Amino acid sequence: MAKKATKAAGKSIKYVYTWGAGKADGNGSQKALLGGKGANLAEMTLIQLPVPPGFTISTEVCTYFYANKRTYPECLQAQMDAGVKNMEKIMGAKFGGTTGMPLLVAVRSGARDSMPGMMDTVLNLGLNDQTVEALTKATNNERFAWDCYRRFIQMYGDVVLGVQKREGEDHEPFEVVIETFKHEVYHKDIVDSDLTADDQKELVKRFKALVKERTGKGFPNDVWDQLRGAAGAVFGSWMNDRAIVYRRKYNIPSEWGTAVNVQAMVYGNTGDDSGSGVAFTRNPANGVNEFYGEFLINAQGEDVVAGVRTPDPVVKLNNVMPKAYKELLKVRSTLEKHFKDVQDVEFTIQKGQLFMLQTRNGKRTAAAALKFSMDMVKEKLIDQETAILRNPADQLEQLLAPDFDLAEIKKAKALAVGLPAGPGAASGIIYLNADRAAAAAEKGETVLLVRNETSPEDLRGMIAAAGILTAKGGVSSHAALVARQMGKVCICGASAVLIDYDKKTVTISGQVFKEGKDYLSIDGTAGTIYGGQVKTGPSQIVLGMLKGDKVAAKTEKVQQFKTLMDWCSKATRLAVRTNADNPEQTEQAIAFGAQGIGLTRTEHMFFEGDRIDAVREMILAEDEQGRRAALAKILPYQREDFIGIFKALKGLPATIRLLDPPLHEFVPHDDKAQAELATKLGLTKEKVASRVNALHEFNPMLGHRGCRLGIAYPEITETQARAIFEAAAEVQKKGIKVKPEVMIPLVGFKKELDLQVAVVHRVAAEVQKEKKIKLSYQVGTMIEVPRGALTADEIAETAEFFSFGTNDLTQTALGISRDDMGNFLMPYTENEIFKKNPFATLDATGVGQLVKIAIEKGRATRPDIKLGICGEHGGDPDSVKFFHNVGLAYVSCSPYRVPVARLAAAQAAIEEKRANAAAAPAKKSAKKAPAKKAAKKK
Amino acid sequence: MAKKATKAAGKSIKYVYTWGAGKADGNGSQKALLGGKGANLAEMTLIQLPVPPGFTISTEVCTYFYANKRTYPECLQAQMDAGVKNMEKIMGAKFGGTTGMPLLVAVRSGARDSMPGMMDTVLNLGLNDQTVEALTKATNNERFAWDCYRRFIQMYGDVVLGVQKREGEDHEPFEVVIETFKHEVYHKDIVDSDLTADDQKELVKRFKALVKERTGKGFPNDVWDQLRGAAGAVFGSWMNDRAIVYRRKYNIPSEWGTAVNVQAMVYGNTGDDSGSGVAFTRNPANGVNEFYGEFLINAQGEDVVAGVRTPDPVVKLNNVMPKAYKELLKVRSTLEKHFKDVQDVEFTIQKGQLFMLQTRNGKRTAAAALKFSMDMVKEKLIDQETAILRNPADQLEQLLAPDFDLAEIKKAKALAVGLPAGPGAASGIIYLNADRAAAAAEKGETVLLVRNETSPEDLRGMIAAAGILTAKGGVSSHAALVARQMGKVCICGASAVLIDYDKKTVTISGQVFKEGKDYLSIDGTAGTIYGGQVKTGPSQIVLGMLKGDKVAAKTEKVQQFKTLMDWCSKATRLAVRTNADNPEQTEQAIAFGAQGIGLTRTEHMFFEGDRIDAVREMILAEDEQGRRAALAKILPYQREDFIGIFKALKGLPATIRLLDPPLHEFVPHDDKAQAELATKLGLTKEKVASRVNALHEFNPMLGHRGCRLGIAYPEITETQARAIFEAAAEVQKKGIKVKPEVMIPLVGFKKELDLQVAVVHRVAAEVQKEKKIKLSYQVGTMIEVPRGALTADEIAETAEFFSFGTNDLTQTALGISRDDMGNFLMPYTENEIFKKNPFATLDATGVGQLVKIAIEKGRATRPDIKLGICGEHGGDPDSVKFFHNVGLAYVSCSPYRVPVARLAAAQAAIEEKRANAAAAPAKKSAKKAPAKKAAKKK
Repeated sequence: MAKKATKAAGKSIKYVYTWGAGKADGNGSQKALLGGKGANLAEMTLIQLPVPPGFTISTEVCTYFYANKRTYPECLQAQMDAGVKNMEKIMGAKFGGTTGMPLLVAVRSGARDSMPGMMDTVLNLGLNDQTVEALTKATNNERFAWDCYRRFIQMYGDVVLGVQKREGEDHEPFEVVIETFKHEVYHKDIVDSDLTADDQKELVKRFKALVKERTGKGFPNDVWDQLRGAAGAVFGSWMNDRAIVYRRKYNIPSEWGTAVNVQAMVYGNTGDDSGSGVAFTRNPANGVNEFYGEFLINAQGEDVVAGVRTPDPVVKLNNVMPKAYKELLKVRSTLEKHFKDVQDVEFTIQKGQLFMLQTRNGKRTAAAALKFSMDMVKEKLIDQETAILRNPADQLEQLLAPDFDLAEIKKAKALAVGLPAGPGAASGIIYLNADRAAAAAEKGETVLLVRNETSPEDLRGMIAAAGILTAKGGVSSHAALVARQMGKVCICGASAVLIDYDKKTVTISGQVFKEGKDYLSIDGTAGTIYGGQVKTGPSQIVLGMLKGDKVAAKTEKVQQFKTLMDWCSKATRLAVRTNADNPEQTEQAIAFGAQGIGLTRTEHMFFEGDRIDAVREMILAEDEQGRRAALAKILPYQREDFIGIFKALKGLPATIRLLDPPLHEFVPHDDKAQAELATKLGLTKEKVASRVNALHEFNPMLGHRGCRLGIAYPEITETQARAIFEAAAEVQKKGIKVKPEVMIPLVGFKKELDLQVAVVHRVAAEVQKEKKIKLSYQVGTMIEVPRGALTADEIAETAEFFSFGTNDLTQTALGISRDDMGNFLMPYTENEIFKKNPFATLDATGVGQLVKIAIEKGRATRPDIKLGICGEHGGDPDSVKFFHNVGLAYVSCSPYRVPVARLAAAQAAIEEKRANAAAAPAKKSAKKAPAKKAAKKK
Repeated sequence: MAKKATKAAGKSIKYVYTWGAGKADGNGSQKALLGGKGANLAEMTLIQLPVPPGFTISTEVCTYFYANKRTYPECLQAQMDAGVKNMEKIMGAKFGGTTGMPLLVAVRSGARDSMPGMMDTVLNLGLNDQTVEALTKATNNERFAWDCYRRFIQMYGDVVLGVQKREGEDHEPFEVVIETFKHEVYHKDIVDSDLTADDQKELVKRFKALVKERTGKGFPNDVWDQLRGAAGAVFGSWMNDRAIVYRRKYNIPSEWGTAVNVQAMVYGNTGDDSGSGVAFTRNPANGVNEFYGEFLINAQGEDVVAGVRTPDPVVKLNNVMPKAYKELLKVRSTLEKHFKDVQDVEFTIQKGQLFMLQTRNGKRTAAAALKFSMDMVKEKLIDQETAILRNPADQLEQLLAPDFDLAEIKKAKALAVGLPAGPGAASGIIYLNADRAAAAAEKGETVLLVRNETSPEDLRGMIAAAGILTAKGGVSSHAALVARQMGKVCICGASAVLIDYDKKTVTISGQVFKEGKDYLSIDGTAGTIYGGQVKTGPSQIVLGMLKGDKVAAKTEKVQQFKTLMDWCSKATRLAVRTNADNPEQTEQAIAFGAQGIGLTRTEHMFFEGDRIDAVREMILAEDEQGRRAALAKILPYQREDFIGIFKALKGLPATIRLLDPPLHEFVPHDDKAQAELATKLGLTKEKVASRVNALHEFNPMLGHRGCRLGIAYPEITETQARAIFEAAAEVQKKGIKVKPEVMIPLVGFKKELDLQVAVVHRVAAEVQKEKKIKLSYQVGTMIEVPRGALTADEIAETAEFFSFGTNDLTQTALGISRDDMGNFLMPYTENEIFKKNPFATLDATGVGQLVKIAIEKGRATRPDIKLGICGEHGGDPDSVKFFHNVGLAYVSCSPYRVPVARLAAAQAAIEEKRANAAAAPAKKSAKKAPAKKAAKKK
């Protein structure tokens, strides 16, 4: 949070930015100051789109608010007065006016990045017992006026006055009042639109009584009290739990704050010539260039996104209001040309007249982002580099996520169809409540969240679920929006899904599914719901690029994906390698564009086939002789492993890490398995048990592992080196280039590396002599303990390359075991101690310093030292950008994350280039200035 | 090792330094170049003491030797030729000469620091079948000449040619030849001095045959071949196992190398008017100013230290050779005045004439060091600061080590008396072999090593033993020297001790003790041996300073110790605090001069009395409410703890660390104890077991501990803070100042500290209000994970002090768990990967960087931040010096190490002052030079 703004300073600052009638104080570039919504309302006004007038209270007020014990700058009221006057003038209506049409306003939050459903909104503000009469008179529609008033009290009571469900209550109190009233009067559950004007009046009375009872105070009658209260609630909601959860998920700094937008109301609920809708200028699920959205006749905007009534597709608007629809299509085209990106808009039609209430860049699936960006380059709206930046790297994995297995899905029973709202395939045990879903997921269950509709309260459950299924709501409902952004598989508005929350069952086509027990499977791309569990299979891109499926390879999606990757290669500086332990993984990664192997974990092959017996024999050996005998059995296996990998690499380099994990990981710990092993090895059971016990460590992470194994047992290093070089010799003799890079793990002291490197060089010399061949290889180390980084200058005397093991480096630098973090992760994320999980995204502030120190010191000793990273962070976009910026040569990640890393690397290069270009003219002018001065002096 | 010296460079360098007849190339200050022995031989020559001539081959040749595949610089031979010529001239004898007296030489190693028994020596070199005849003729003593030749072949054969005991052999092969011969000829085991000249001739023949058989080559007849071979053996022995073990124990860098000293032989074995001896200018065991040493009539120097014959006290020399003795007393006085320190000398008397063969600063016990230094200040030989430097800080703890319990020792049975060679008291299970002793000690037994005599091969066993007892050898024997230096309790030459190596028994005064079973107890100060186990009790200094024993307090030892500590306080800058968890420890530490508490571990009091039940109840609680109920029971206990500590401190500050260890450390892990606990807490056994299981962590070091506990359960922090402040309020009301410093452990992120500090401040405010009192306190953090150090600038925004937790910082920076290091410690120390155990002495290169970074960053944010260290390193002298140099305000260590830390801190300050003083004139002259230039220009 910025340093405390003083009250005195508040006096001279502009806090309120108005727009309306084609003019605006702000514009679309001022998102940090005005929030996304406010800036774009100003921008739309400036490009002469039909926007109801209003004003934005800037994010600086939010900052001031939290820095000054929730108070406002002194000058704010005067500026708001002016803003309201401007609206009154344009609308010809008076705020709080009791004659003529009264001005009502909508009060909405507007953060820098849109946070759908996170912040609170109040509509129809400005109504009281007097203005409702004026509204009745002015519109000649008593039912409409009282409907607005009733809605206003309910919203304001909920959001601003906090009249909400209490612990132990099952339903929202305002809803209870409505239900009670309906049953009293109509003896049944009628829809809200069937309520008469008198019904609404009665409800207003009862709502006011409820507010009085719950808050101890009357409902505010003064319209300015209402407005200040609403603005305060918006600012207050910035720090509510839902907002905090959302920001955590999307890593939005809490310092940014929100703006407040106050906008003149227009009414979609004045009758059948009115309505409200939301739309995307293109299809945000699959990227198709079609107008995509929905609307409700005679409804306010909130009704559409609430998902209670199922709306009609926006194209059907042409049938009921063709003129408004034609205008909307024009707006669609204007917006895309102006913003050069797909827009997500809200509109209201009041008595046939179109008003735009919001535009923003549309959230999209990874598939849509790919198609949008590629199509727009074709349409010459954007260039290739912009297209690269338009694909969110952290969502790209969605494209590679499994679909249903083709064979399995044919056998599966399609029970119903809903709206496809989040593409992909998911299968899970159903849960009807977010908390229970989250709890089950924590236990390791794969969970499907099934609800009538979702709300921000369900966020935790949605994050935990593999997929989301709702019975109500359209493609713009809360569930759909959130799922799309998270990359969750989602089906919405599947009305055939009947949910019984009490019995915890779901009935679809007569078939009953029980919570916590039964599986459902959903295809979020097609919208199909299947009973039971259906196996998932590779995505189209995986089929097309990895599996040699010719049909898939020819699809537009696969073609566009390839194009994107090609463009990335042109733009990038950072190479991407892969972490692969066998030939198959290697081939996959190369198909995805990997430029070699950054990490082969030799021990990953130890469990394959019979070889684990030899490994165990080696571990349980009493002396060097015994170990050598067992190692002799392991040697041919390891050699074959490396031969396979070298062949698959076709000349690309391979960094091979020598044995790393503590030996206890390879031996059995239960009695029975130990007895079997004893029999196999001809030892007593006690001998095996005692040796296994001796391997026990209190903190194995910090124990006898890494190069410490090779130093205690040099014969292990020797055998592994021999396997590598014999394999290299054999493959090279077949005419395939081989570039092994032997990597010594967990080095903290130069001498450790020296000792191990001596063994490797000796064995290399022996093999080259035996095989009469010259091999080209390097020996280097992992930098994965802080001491290794801090003494990188010494270590680089011996190491020809460094590969940062950022997993272990994070564990040691933070003193946090990844395996044990679960016990305190919750309070840590809730308190924002971690901005991001440091094991997912590199902790640039802490661990990043060690990386930088190691780079600097390593290069000081050996300027051409090869630098890379092979921890899990190598596939995380933010981390990849960090690694680009500090100047590594490559990152290495698992095969399926290679495209993600390539995209992130290209984006990092483009962003750097653009930042440099932006800085360059500034420098030039800075240089010019003194030149001018000098000229003057002459 | 220095960069490879090229052969070309070798040509112009002086490698050989001669001395003799009052002149010398080198002097006593050149220990790095000439080794200690060589430098002091030159120095003694220069001050006109009677030293046989010779020359030193410098340590640079050793460096060259190892950098150039064990070869020598080209110019070396010519320089050696000149050196030999100089000796020949002074001695009037020719090396290899067959007419007149031939020149024989002794070849000895000489490292920078003396390494007793570690390096190999060859005497009587220059004898062959021709020169032995010349020697016979010149001395007219055939037996003497052939005794020398026989000794020479035996020594040379062993040391240079490697004719040594092989695996499976029980005795040295030369000894076997002698024994066989004796039994053949005399049918019994006669002493060597009874062998006739003909016997020696026969033995020479047999020895030569043995050499031929074992080496395949004849014994070298050429005297130059002999000399080059011996020099090579000395250089080679620098890297032998014994030397490596010794260097490791005393942290001598292997890069230093050794010099070789070639010195003209003088003979102590020419008859009863000759002899050899070793002596200390004062008593090195207790520090008394008395001439202390021993000699053997008709013997060469090696006989004295070998311990085979028990020598006579040196004062008895007055009876047999009064003239030589008088001269020796004069030398004693000259040496102390010249070197201003106690000297350890070797001398030989040849036909009544005294020759000095060596002088060096005498090794001494801590008690002797204390008395030497204090006495010499009185004698005005040295000043107070030099006296401080003369007390080795790492030995000071010896003075505080337990003696036998006075009550117990009265009941114990004194079996025999030997020579008191290493002061202190030790009691242990006897072992007669070094390997078995070491193995038993590893298993946790307290071990007493009992041998006839010890040799360098026994070093590992001596290190492992609590005490050493030998049946043969005097106070200068190997056992005595090594024990004294290590601070081991030792008795030598206890001839009543009869050892049967085969039966593994020791018989003393008819009582039989079995290896591995029976105890002996030894008083190394008095020399008394007791049967069975005797309890040990506090030392005189502890009695005098801590226990209020008035008799002890008045002893010279205690008085001198106090004086030393007072001088330290005057010289020092770094304060010393203590790690204390209760009032008793606090009082002890203050009596030792601690200036407050640097670390109170609040949890150390959790196990006392019934409180563990409340602690366990807290840990097993299901929710905050349950925890709070249990914490309410803990609060009064903790408050009492702090009241006691604050009172004991009498106004000194106390750093109190909040709960740190993982909770699983407090709960029972076995079934029975869990069942009992369940009954106590009214829970099911399953509940307890399941909660204990949930606390299991893979790497508890990196798990849910430190501030992570307080963040998950703020109520724990709250309760501990309340206990601290309520105690502070109560003690302050009694008129005693209280300065609590609340320390949050394991902070890696500023936000962690912020959250905990907020709780502490809140509670402090509450207590101050409740108790109507103003408390003065600070809140700070431990820097003990690398991220804490790296982000110290951020953390210092909140922290008022840092205390470095160097134990955990070492574990995380190195990625090494102290508890698990045992598995790979051996190859690590053998390969010198660690110069010192990083958990004993701070790893200045690695961990030290983090400390420096944290200091720099912490001060950048908060210039007056209080900086200290509370890890185990706070009591380690080398580490204390590091902490002084980086500018910490204090170190904190356990009470008994407080004097050690005070001494080390004073030494660091004095060394810094002296280094600055030494650098200052250099700077001045550097500044003067340009001033002169400027003057010239004028």
